[in-house]
Amino acid sequence: MPHIITRIDRPTPAEVAALAPFGTATIHEAQGRSGALSSRIKPIDRTMRLCGPAFTVASAPRDNIMLQLAINYAQAGDVIVVSAGEYEEAGCFGDVLGNACLAKGIAGVVTDTGVRDTADLIKLGLPVFSLSVCIKGTVKETLGQINKPVIIGGIEVRPGDIISGDADGLVVVERERAAEVAQLSKAREEAEADYIRRYKAGESVISVSNLAAVLAAKGLTTDL
Amino acid sequence: MPHIITRIDRPTPAEVAALAPFGTATIHEAQGRSGALSSRIKPIDRTMRLCGPAFTVASAPRDNIMLQLAINYAQAGDVIVVSAGEYEEAGCFGDVLGNACLAKGIAGVVTDTGVRDTADLIKLGLPVFSLSVCIKGTVKETLGQINKPVIIGGIEVRPGDIISGDADGLVVVERERAAEVAQLSKAREEAEADYIRRYKAGESVISVSNLAAVLAAKGLTTDL
Amino acid sequence: MPHIITRIDRPTPAEVAALAPFGTATIHEAQGRSGALSSRIKPIDRTMRLCGPAFTVASAPRDNIMLQLAINYAQAGDVIVVSAGEYEEAGCFGDVLGNACLAKGIAGVVTDTGVRDTADLIKLGLPVFSLSVCIKGTVKETLGQINKPVIIGGIEVRPGDIISGDADGLVVVERERAAEVAQLSKAREEAEADYIRRYKAGESVISVSNLAAVLAAKGLTTDL
Amino acid sequence: MPHIITRIDRPTPAEVAALAPFGTATIHEAQGRSGALSSRIKPIDRTMRLCGPAFTVASAPRDNIMLQLAINYAQAGDVIVVSAGEYEEAGCFGDVLGNACLAKGIAGVVTDTGVRDTADLIKLGLPVFSLSVCIKGTVKETLGQINKPVIIGGIEVRPGDIISGDADGLVVVERERAAEVAQLSKAREEAEADYIRRYKAGESVISVSNLAAVLAAKGLTTDL
Amino acid sequence: MPHIITRIDRPTPAEVAALAPFGTATIHEAQGRSGALSSRIKPIDRTMRLCGPAFTVASAPRDNIMLQLAINYAQAGDVIVVSAGEYEEAGCFGDVLGNACLAKGIAGVVTDTGVRDTADLIKLGLPVFSLSVCIKGTVKETLGQINKPVIIGGIEVRPGDIISGDADGLVVVERERAAEVAQLSKAREEAEADYIRRYKAGESVISVSNLAAVLAAKGLTTDL
Amino acid sequence: MPHIITRIDRPTPAEVAALAPFGTATIHEAQGRSGALSSRIKPIDRTMRLCGPAFTVASAPRDNIMLQLAINYAQAGDVIVVSAGEYEEAGCFGDVLGNACLAKGIAGVVTDTGVRDTADLIKLGLPVFSLSVCIKGTVKETLGQINKPVIIGGIEVRPGDIISGDADGLVVVERERAAEVAQLSKAREEAEADYIRRYKAGESVISVSNLAAVLAAKGLTTDL
Repeated sequence: MPHIITRIDRPTPAEVAALAPFGTATIHEAQGRSGALSSRIKPIDRTMRLCGPAFTVASAPRDNIMLQLAINYAQAGDVIVVSAGEYEEAGCFGDVLGNACLAKGIAGVVTDTGVRDTADLIKLGLPVFSLSVCIKGTVKETLGQINKPVIIGGIEVRPGDIISGDADGLVVVERERAAEVAQLSKAREEAEADYIRRYKAGESVISVSNLAAVLAAKGLTTDL
Repeated sequence: MPHIITRIDRPTPAEVAALAPFGTATIHEAQGRSGALSSRIKPIDRTMRLCGPAFTVASAPRDNIMLQLAINYAQAGDVIVVSAGEYEEAGCFGDVLGNACLAKGIAGVVTDTGVRDTADLIKLGLPVFSLSVCIKGTVKETLGQINKPVIIGGIEVRPGDIISGDADGLVVVERERAAEVAQLSKAREEAEADYIRRYKAGESVISVSNLAAVLAAKGLTTDL
Repeated sequence: MPHIITRIDRPTPAEVAALAPFGTATIHEAQGRSGALSSRIKPIDRTMRLCGPAFTVASAPRDNIMLQLAINYAQAGDVIVVSAGEYEEAGCFGDVLGNACLAKGIAGVVTDTGVRDTADLIKLGLPVFSLSVCIKGTVKETLGQINKPVIIGGIEVRPGDIISGDADGLVVVERERAAEVAQLSKAREEAEADYIRRYKAGESVISVSNLAAVLAAKGLTTDL
Repeated sequence: MPHIITRIDRPTPAEVAALAPFGTATIHEAQGRSGALSSRIKPIDRTMRLCGPAFTVASAPRDNIMLQLAINYAQAGDVIVVSAGEYEEAGCFGDVLGNACLAKGIAGVVTDTGVRDTADLIKLGLPVFSLSVCIKGTVKETLGQINKPVIIGGIEVRPGDIISGDADGLVVVERERAAEVAQLSKAREEAEADYIRRYKAGESVISVSNLAAVLAAKGLTTDL
Repeated sequence: MPHIITRIDRPTPAEVAALAPFGTATIHEAQGRSGALSSRIKPIDRTMRLCGPAFTVASAPRDNIMLQLAINYAQAGDVIVVSAGEYEEAGCFGDVLGNACLAKGIAGVVTDTGVRDTADLIKLGLPVFSLSVCIKGTVKETLGQINKPVIIGGIEVRPGDIISGDADGLVVVERERAAEVAQLSKAREEAEADYIRRYKAGESVISVSNLAAVLAAKGLTTDL
Repeated sequence: MPHIITRIDRPTPAEVAALAPFGTATIHEAQGRSGALSSRIKPIDRTMRLCGPAFTVASAPRDNIMLQLAINYAQAGDVIVVSAGEYEEAGCFGDVLGNACLAKGIAGVVTDTGVRDTADLIKLGLPVFSLSVCIKGTVKETLGQINKPVIIGGIEVRPGDIISGDADGLVVVERERAAEVAQLSKAREEAEADYIRRYKAGESVISVSNLAAVLAAKGLTTDL
């Protein structure tokens, strides 16, 4: 019997805000090289960024009834994450539903199928990440699930996990680790800033990356 | 014996003008969810839009002699539509032929192979939709057909059908249905504008999309 | 025994400067329709252009130790060219190493795997061409080669060959032919400028491309 | 209003029988290098061959209600041809419907989506050509069309056209040209048999293919 | 700190034996249309079948150290399931490790990367399912995980879940549901056998599939 | 000016015979993990094997004039290797040219485009490796090169290099290294036979692969 879960545990706004400034690659590295979705899912415009709790949807391919329900039940700040079978030739989301999302303050939409009306969506300023951009629409016939864990882009996303996206793609942070990963991301960003300062000061890559000992151990020689 | 058809029945300028304002997804839905080309064919720049009668070309892959002839015989306002076997590693069109098109007032070029000189083409402002962007050129050796129906992007396009393109891709409208589809598109756009107004006014998706009865019939329950 | 070559024969700055103004498609045609890499390798931003001697790297997939060493040993003006097995799901280069490149005056980075931190890389203004954009990182474990000939994008690139990139992709010019290809490119560009002038003056494609005799020989007829 | 066409003009059994012995590549060449479907659609077993009139189906992706209806209405000897949007991750046909086809004497099934139960289908001996083999099933919800022209594998197939398949893939012959194409195929096969005899007798490729004059005209030289 | 789990809860041999006779498509349908891996992962020989508890491995792409450890610690009857990042251009498993598996009675190997020595593996009779067949080897450098849940082919597989494979691909059954799914599969197979009997007896598809009422409700008409 | 090289340095028959028994994966490993072509190029039948000197052809896509010339000039025992731009939708070789090859004793054909008449080619017993199987033919219009180094499957193959193929794909051995690589392959095969003996005798993977020290160094622990 189909049943929709609408009540999920979300990270605190402070936890989301702590992660929001970091790039996806930084977060991925900081949490131990995990959480990145397939590189095939990208923002429809390179300047788009999103960060928020995942409101997850498992949908049939070429069917957006569950996505519509998700918009209905999601809260301001949520990112709707739709796993729909990696079908490129359907657009499950466009500017009308984009306005519905904006009206509710939804923080973004992520899907492994297509979207459409992209020129209008970009004007709206709603962050949208998808596998494709496709004119062809969907039906509203098959029920799926809302707020069960989903697989998308080769990764499991659970409701309430934090999903963060930028020009490089998407990364998911387990809700329980939000604060820890924010701190690790900050540490990594500071370390990277230090590397950059040292590069700007003229230090070599071998020195900054501490490669000399590694290379000696591997017996590397040069013509210098 | 190779023979080129140059005289085709075109829609009236008023019919083209009536369709031009609508997005491709709107037209696709308005005419009964048909006519969209494969999502693999996209504009070389997201801001490009085109709308006009198709001047169709069937070409060998990696050969642009028929495209050159099409530019020669097409009229101002025509969209040249080249079906060339979905080969990604050839660019059949660049800035020189782009200038030839502009000089004649051709409304755009659509192909299921590659194009090149894209930075210059974008500066020219000629709308170009292609499967790929590729440096490698073509030969001018094999004759094909002009103004016979072609299959492109998985769809049949007949000479004189209206082809419309925007950031989402391309859709074709049968010439006989041009006026009807323009009206249906207008009706759909007005309905969508109404949906958007209702969303902005705070109405829910279930209400706007009339989903309550459908969901009850399917036995859907929630935790609310 | 692993050994790194750091000393290579480079073209003169004048040879590089002579090729730099031309588009990649012009160079490809001018040197006899050769040298273009696969169209799958593209700039991360369409406005990026590069031209310089190739500093070549053969790397294991998902491993950037050789790329780091290449940055260490390359000179100002070099383009680092990394052949790494066409793996889309790894980003071997980001903004930290991008700053290292900028600090040394490196002219650009080309790879057949992924890169990341693309928003920052675009802000830096360093030209980067890649097969994909991917959040997932690499390891630093397996030695490869520096400044041996590599295969990338289906083409052989030798250290010191000139690699040129723009919105259309990448083309390589053999070092020995640099001056000749620059001249041929100039001649082609002038011929193309003449074609464009003739198109603007209203001349037909059949006339500009001298197609009449070819078409007569092939027995082509029209309905005119 | 949905409406199914069940009555179509078919080629005569003699016309089908005349085409059946020829390989698909022979037919494709004989009718002027046309009619081959995309090479992505292949038999599920290399030994499968089919030849018969197309009973065409236009179906939603991941929905087999129209295919079921087609089996209901098709006649013995028909080949059911299902255009369903090139979705790889669904199997629209398996051994149960395979038995339904066998019971009616249907000559084979062709589709641009997936099939399943392939071990059983191969045992049944029913020729099946598909884009993929996929475990995942379909729904029975969306109506489509039967016996209207369809686009499949990049080619238009009209009801009653003859479709022929073997290890290489599929080719369609327009019903009106069936007898002519059978004769042309026979002529081509005889010419090829003669070429093969001459090769076996030791004649060179340049002689058999009459290449000497062509090569001289192109100025080809050798080191002999 | 890397840690390997070797002790997992397995289904009983009786539970495995109860599922083993059923085709993957039957199991997938029987358990509610779930559990099928991506159709891209296939047996290296169509006659291969496997069924057993999953011994799961999370591995770096192009690295088989964890697969070697898994063979070391797995038990007779286990199916080793290796998630390695969907990299096609590496073969992580060949006939030497195939002999190691056979010596231990391992029931099969499943991976989302490549394998090699396939002619020998087929002779050995060990069931192997992979994304690709690739000559290129792997390294043994990066530690991963053993017997944590993995994502493979777009599906989560937990250690001890039952994985079943045949010519169509692979499906996973949750350990807790093994007995239930075996019963449901048996019921489905019996229902299908009944459908097949009715088809052989000449009953129509519309009758067997009970489509008449559905079609009437949708307003379908025919030309009969 | 087009010029064909017909005289190339070939390995001795003894060198070819010494390499012929080894699997492609063994050769690839033995020569230092190099020489394997892309896994996308495969035999049209899994039982096909070939080994012989490469007679190299650089061809335009969808054009087989150079392949025909290569058959004309190649010697018994040669493997014709055709680099043609990785176009899947053309078959450049079929049973007529297959008979021409057999009549001359040519050892096999390798190409990065398609072939056709595969049922007949398999009956002929001529080893053929290709990117695709495609009904659509080629033209004979554009000259290319014979016996210049070519890039195919991401690898450089020089005329006279030895190319070896089996069910796994293709690997190339530099002519100068033929004898050395045969010896290294033999040594590797003997080592592998020893590993297999030890596995059959019940020795563990950790012991056979000497992993204990490596794992200790990496700090790996288990639940045993």
